[in-house]
Amino acid sequence: MHILITGAAGMIGRKLTERLTKDGALNGRPIERLTLTDVVAPQMPGAFAGKADIATSDIAAPGEAVRLVAGRPDVVFHLAGIVSGEAELDFDKGYRINLDGTRALLEAIRAASDGYRPKVVFTSSIAVFGAPFPQAIPDEFHLTPLTSYGAQKAICELMLADYTRRGFLDGVGIRLPSIVVRPGKPNKAASGFFSGIIREPLAGHEAVLPVPETVLHWHASPRSAVGFLVHAAGLARDTLGPRINLAMPGVCCTVGEQIAALRRIAGDKLAARIRREPDPLIMRIVDGWPSRFDPRRALALGFRVEATFDDIIRAHIEDELGGKISCHTLANGE
Amino acid sequence: MHILITGAAGMIGRKLTERLTKDGALNGRPIERLTLTDVVAPQMPGAFAGKADIATSDIAAPGEAVRLVAGRPDVVFHLAGIVSGEAELDFDKGYRINLDGTRALLEAIRAASDGYRPKVVFTSSIAVFGAPFPQAIPDEFHLTPLTSYGAQKAICELMLADYTRRGFLDGVGIRLPSIVVRPGKPNKAASGFFSGIIREPLAGHEAVLPVPETVLHWHASPRSAVGFLVHAAGLARDTLGPRINLAMPGVCCTVGEQIAALRRIAGDKLAARIRREPDPLIMRIVDGWPSRFDPRRALALGFRVEATFDDIIRAHIEDELGGKISCHTLANGE
Repeated sequence: MHILITGAAGMIGRKLTERLTKDGALNGRPIERLTLTDVVAPQMPGAFAGKADIATSDIAAPGEAVRLVAGRPDVVFHLAGIVSGEAELDFDKGYRINLDGTRALLEAIRAASDGYRPKVVFTSSIAVFGAPFPQAIPDEFHLTPLTSYGAQKAICELMLADYTRRGFLDGVGIRLPSIVVRPGKPNKAASGFFSGIIREPLAGHEAVLPVPETVLHWHASPRSAVGFLVHAAGLARDTLGPRINLAMPGVCCTVGEQIAALRRIAGDKLAARIRREPDPLIMRIVDGWPSRFDPRRALALGFRVEATFDDIIRAHIEDELGGKISCHTLANGE
Repeated sequence: MHILITGAAGMIGRKLTERLTKDGALNGRPIERLTLTDVVAPQMPGAFAGKADIATSDIAAPGEAVRLVAGRPDVVFHLAGIVSGEAELDFDKGYRINLDGTRALLEAIRAASDGYRPKVVFTSSIAVFGAPFPQAIPDEFHLTPLTSYGAQKAICELMLADYTRRGFLDGVGIRLPSIVVRPGKPNKAASGFFSGIIREPLAGHEAVLPVPETVLHWHASPRSAVGFLVHAAGLARDTLGPRINLAMPGVCCTVGEQIAALRRIAGDKLAARIRREPDPLIMRIVDGWPSRFDPRRALALGFRVEATFDDIIRAHIEDELGGKISCHTLANGE
């Protein structure tokens, strides 16, 4: 089994690599070779016994995609992309990387024309949807993105479905919920506070909350995101039918419920490190995002997510903090 | 008012040109200039007092789109495209003309960057939808095309909406029903029989019906299609909101009801010229097509279609047959 991961240096890419090297197998077949690529060099997996190729490449650059599939990977995890904020600021770059880059990859696979038909798992996003929404978005709801990023992801979904229908590859697109708790430093993403209000207090820092506690959103942990990708790679073609792009399950909760979960797990003192600082711009952006899905197809196909936001926080503590809350003593009464 | 029509040599393009030159105005403003383009030379409009430019061009060829918008048309009717059957047979050509050609046009407009922001009316199709369907397809139903043509149209809809949202142009996409009665010779299109079973008997010829009379479909006359385009060009930006792509109203009827309408208008004898010759391939294709919509937004925005299939037949007799049925005597008892 040879696996290619694009965007391998990103947060999800790194965690997927870790999971695959730890499992040593995918779909019951041992992983002999990993090709990891990104615009910055991905990290070589430490404990991997197979052959690992590290490629620094811009997938939208001429010839790059052809080079990447020259080794005929059996499974391609296509995670590479420009994030939402950057795609909105730089129109050309967003279309070049997110649309042209993906198309170049699909075309490189089609050009093989030697019977090569890999599994292609594509990370789409709930940003393909745009308000107004019904109370819970059904699997049949239309895609009317309100960002260029969302438009690019929706376009790639359509191409992936058409290339699959034509038999050039075996695609599945998974629309990721907002992934929390993202590890690392706070960033400028409009959605950053969803992670920040959990991660920062747990690390002993103050967090800023720019929206009211009534804001409702759709979440999954990084661990679940990796689980979705691995599960998608194992789906048999005929279980999917022609509608290969799927909204993933998530945990629907308000910001207030997020904070209550943090309080349950880490105590009042720690949860008190969230400072309210309303930001009308962020509020307006968040208002256009979907908050609740009814992802029946994904559930029927076996995709699983945390049951509660408490579980999402616990996954963060286990995966990022070695199972310990740094300021735990503080939380339980300083 | 300067108007550009791409695909001007096609059936809808010719009829739109006729209508505009006859009206002499669009949105209450006199038409001073018409630019007509297609891969084959469009016909010069006879009775047009303004300036008419005829351009033979492939919109996907480098530089062509920039040349077409150099005269800064106020309204662009973008009808150019490869039809469904050809896009399915020639994958590269379909994506090149239908996707890259449209993108080149949108990019040429964006590149103007001198405050130029034309109205762009794009002809999409109900082929953006793919079975299975609810009994009547609501405006919020997702796009899961089952042809490359449908995928290309859906992708163009997403680009048009994003370019509109970003303020580069003022787009509206209209999803045309199956247009009947198409004038001219029978062609190889899978949908050709819907027109053929009306047009051929009216012209004194035999027609072949490859599907059962129970097949239900969504129709509008060529006259209505032109009406949709003209109405779309007149819609104020703020009446549309961000969801600029709209399913058009149509007449929903079975093939049996089509034939009954023909019988009412032209008599039993003439309607008897339809020969049943079941074709499993055409039946399978037709099964994947949508048959009934609930196009509330288009109706609320003032788009209008024929009330009955009888009206669609009468529009054909008026517009194509000079108001007369050639074999009328036959029909009323030879």
